[in-house]
Amino acid sequence: MSAFRSFPAGPQSTEALARLVDGTVHGSARMVAGVAPLEGAPAGALAWCGRATVPGSPAVLLATAPGPGTTIVVRDPLRAFGQILRHLFEEDHPPGVHPGATVHPTAVLGVGVVVHAGCVVGPRVQVGDGTILFPNVTVYADTVVGARCRIHAGAVLGADGFRYAAGPTGPERIPQLGRLVLEDEVEVGANTCVDRAGLGETRIGRGSKLDNLVQVGHNSQLGPAVVLAGQAGLAGSVTVGAGAQVGGQAGIADHRSVGAGARVGAQSGVTQDVPDGETVLGTPAMSARAVRRLWATWRRTARGLVRRG
Amino acid sequence: MSAFRSFPAGPQSTEALARLVDGTVHGSARMVAGVAPLEGAPAGALAWCGRATVPGSPAVLLATAPGPGTTIVVRDPLRAFGQILRHLFEEDHPPGVHPGATVHPTAVLGVGVVVHAGCVVGPRVQVGDGTILFPNVTVYADTVVGARCRIHAGAVLGADGFRYAAGPTGPERIPQLGRLVLEDEVEVGANTCVDRAGLGETRIGRGSKLDNLVQVGHNSQLGPAVVLAGQAGLAGSVTVGAGAQVGGQAGIADHRSVGAGARVGAQSGVTQDVPDGETVLGTPAMSARAVRRLWATWRRTARGLVRRG
Amino acid sequence: MSAFRSFPAGPQSTEALARLVDGTVHGSARMVAGVAPLEGAPAGALAWCGRATVPGSPAVLLATAPGPGTTIVVRDPLRAFGQILRHLFEEDHPPGVHPGATVHPTAVLGVGVVVHAGCVVGPRVQVGDGTILFPNVTVYADTVVGARCRIHAGAVLGADGFRYAAGPTGPERIPQLGRLVLEDEVEVGANTCVDRAGLGETRIGRGSKLDNLVQVGHNSQLGPAVVLAGQAGLAGSVTVGAGAQVGGQAGIADHRSVGAGARVGAQSGVTQDVPDGETVLGTPAMSARAVRRLWATWRRTARGLVRRG
Repeated sequence: MSAFRSFPAGPQSTEALARLVDGTVHGSARMVAGVAPLEGAPAGALAWCGRATVPGSPAVLLATAPGPGTTIVVRDPLRAFGQILRHLFEEDHPPGVHPGATVHPTAVLGVGVVVHAGCVVGPRVQVGDGTILFPNVTVYADTVVGARCRIHAGAVLGADGFRYAAGPTGPERIPQLGRLVLEDEVEVGANTCVDRAGLGETRIGRGSKLDNLVQVGHNSQLGPAVVLAGQAGLAGSVTVGAGAQVGGQAGIADHRSVGAGARVGAQSGVTQDVPDGETVLGTPAMSARAVRRLWATWRRTARGLVRRG
Repeated sequence: MSAFRSFPAGPQSTEALARLVDGTVHGSARMVAGVAPLEGAPAGALAWCGRATVPGSPAVLLATAPGPGTTIVVRDPLRAFGQILRHLFEEDHPPGVHPGATVHPTAVLGVGVVVHAGCVVGPRVQVGDGTILFPNVTVYADTVVGARCRIHAGAVLGADGFRYAAGPTGPERIPQLGRLVLEDEVEVGANTCVDRAGLGETRIGRGSKLDNLVQVGHNSQLGPAVVLAGQAGLAGSVTVGAGAQVGGQAGIADHRSVGAGARVGAQSGVTQDVPDGETVLGTPAMSARAVRRLWATWRRTARGLVRRG
Repeated sequence: MSAFRSFPAGPQSTEALARLVDGTVHGSARMVAGVAPLEGAPAGALAWCGRATVPGSPAVLLATAPGPGTTIVVRDPLRAFGQILRHLFEEDHPPGVHPGATVHPTAVLGVGVVVHAGCVVGPRVQVGDGTILFPNVTVYADTVVGARCRIHAGAVLGADGFRYAAGPTGPERIPQLGRLVLEDEVEVGANTCVDRAGLGETRIGRGSKLDNLVQVGHNSQLGPAVVLAGQAGLAGSVTVGAGAQVGGQAGIADHRSVGAGARVGAQSGVTQDVPDGETVLGTPAMSARAVRRLWATWRRTARGLVRRG
């Protein structure tokens, strides 16, 4: 299948596209029929340039500087590409609550909320305007979901935290009486789980994005614009500051904090607090710069061990 | 939102609460309206003290020793807190099988079983008295679920084990003819998967607790009171002894055993059998004491490499 | 419960079984009532021998060489065992689309497709002949699922890729306009997630097998006969060659490639391309032979550190 996708509303002028993204057209004005990836983009398509550029592409390019052909020059081409896609490609969702969904009569849904088939929304749940619950999402009692959130299929919001006391015959359950709050514009990936609090709240800050199969433990507090990549895991009572990014399969131990703007590399294991703005890597997680050098010594040692037989 | 939760049955006397947990009241008798976390707990609330204490808290405290205010002294404050919560906060579940669930006519459900919307219970499944299946749980054919189990949303019980033979054009499926047995009082977290056996049984022992997004492979045998934290993974035919605890994102290789009372640290990779009572850490997993020292040498090396530029 | 499973069609002669798998009967001809694991297999059962053999087993054995009792000699006993099981044990699935499933009117289902309860199949989805969707599977719009695929419970096919641009107030969504294609005979484990492409296709090659809780990111390209074990994670735009195998909890960084026939050990973190046929291990992933020696030095160091106190 060609990766080209034509605009549902028909061809657009480069001028109109540039206006959408505060860009400047360089080269001859053109009509653009749709979008395509840079590699192999045909004439009549719009594509965006990242680090890789394709000299002599017949497509109209979104780029940071004028190229040989027609270019729409913007500061952030990927961001501009997203703006154009969000403007020109509408998603079609069945309006309202699908008859194959189960919404408790005490749940309160905002204007324009979409609840797909197979979703189960519990007692006293609140869902803000324009939020979409994709199929088979479960929302436990008392959870608050903000406006314009996107909750992907199979996600589980507000299940019990994992908290037990040691009893004489095994672990004894501590009932989880708190709740989960997702602020506005939060996105939750497929089959991701965010637990309710034991008491008080687990909170996911405005505009945070969680990828698929992520685990967020009870009483964790995420600031705004936090990004958690696929299969990342936060134990209980973890704090993550505004704009911090956690890589895929990384884990954060309970009661640890990751500072604002910090970055945690993929598969890292965070056992100590990460200061604001710091980039850490590895298990145990340390300064990424240091870990990359440590890894280089491992590579040399390993190569030497094999050479010696 | 305040984290305070009032008792549904109204205020309780400190004497009555102490009786519930075999504790002793120190200081003046009081009426307690509900529960709160220790930090910021108001007068009229009950809170429990862990390692951290709050001097001069106006709340009634569950603690191991008398404090300046009213204290209910118990051996294990968290455990006593759980006992009080389980006694005074009832969960409300719709009784029986929700009309939005699908239960095969040959499945046998015990007394007081709750099957939430979206659950699918297959042929010849048995579910013991008082067990709760939260929404969107799938139980494959022939699975046995004990009494008083809690199976959280999206969990999948008894799916095929992952077992293939090498064929000339790719992996060839080995039909999985065994079953899965969960004994009584097992808790399974959201979106956790426990596979059926190839032949015979996969078995999860009485009172074991599995967190969210955990994977348990075919033919694994878990003893009683085993704890598997979030995103832990057990390959096929793993044995875990009574009371063992496995940390988040840890993995156990196939056919390995983890002894009774052993502890496997978060993100560890167990490639060799772990003896009873041992604590292991790291990949490859070794004695935790040794690994902590090894990690300390890595930290020193990494710091030195950065200092030298 | 005994692990013995009797043939639904009644006892079979060793000659008939040998014919099914192109094997040769050694020892006296027997009637076989069913199958059992080698350990403890009773007389009248068929069992297969792997590395471990049980001298003097009363069962009929599938093995690579004649034993003391009746043996069906084949080249690959496990493969032959699978062939016999697939031939003699039929699965019973409700035919067609369960009334508790939701299939969009524009979706196209092939002949003999089974859609279990709780499944949600989106607009313009195509599903090939003989494919089984187990309960609570979600298939997003435009996804293509080949013939004779098995998609286990809770799997999510074709959800949005995780792709954002940095905006002034947080991450901005890039609409995901591509699709997901599963070729024929692909198996997807319970609660596994495979994302659609941003533009173009995410593709899973013919006969590939994905275990439970696996994550495959947008635009990834898997060749035929690829095996991904439980909780493995592929970031975006990963390429995996024919017949490659990725171990449990392993992660592959975005835009990396794993060559044909390569093997990635459990919990590995692949940060560089893996050549065809190579076996890698560890984080960062390196030649497995080298890593095993590196690990041996760690074990020695750790032991020494503990000995010195």
